[in-house]
Amino acid sequence: MVRFLVLYTTPKDIEAFERHYHEVHIPLAKKLAGLRRYTLSHNVAPIRGGKPYYLIAELDWDSMDDLKKAFQSPEGQATAEDVDILEKLSPGVYSMIYELEEMV
Amino acid sequence: MVRFLVLYTTPKDIEAFERHYHEVHIPLAKKLAGLRRYTLSHNVAPIRGGKPYYLIAELDWDSMDDLKKAFQSPEGQATAEDVDILEKLSPGVYSMIYELEEMV
Repeated sequence: MVRFLVLYTTPKDIEAFERHYHEVHIPLAKKLAGLRRYTLSHNVAPIRGGKPYYLIAELDWDSMDDLKKAFQSPEGQATAEDVDILEKLSPGVYSMIYELEEMV
Repeated sequence: MVRFLVLYTTPKDIEAFERHYHEVHIPLAKKLAGLRRYTLSHNVAPIRGGKPYYLIAELDWDSMDDLKKAFQSPEGQATAEDVDILEKLSPGVYSMIYELEEMV
């Protein structure tokens, strides 16, 4: 499984961020082909190092190829461009992609 | 579901880090009560912002109570203390706990 992890810092205007995230971003992301799972987490407790994040989004695909196809599509482009708008509301968005190796 | 996410920076001595992680840390973490899933990811591709991480570990429990019980146990204390040793090999470990809200 391949995960796209997005960490959002605390928005300057939480209400504007939540409105945009729910009304625009979630509907866009849900259109992504092959998306297997999409979770959000608002209550993030920092344990070691770094600053606390406001919101964590995880989007999972079966494979790196499926993820790439999703982001090369018009829906994927629109979703990525929408993060540019979210980043204006939550400066310092941090995102990465990784393949999961199961241990347990 | 509750996730414990640990991001490790690139170790100064990758071989020593990997040896300690595999020979000491994984066996300790696998003893944690209620651990439902434990994944590792070595190939992390940064997309937006921040530095690339070397290793991402995700440990999942059914609930925050289960996670707390696991970390209050002697096995949990030993696992947390072992991260102090790992942090000497990978300075700047960043970890957090969050509850997942399912979207898709």
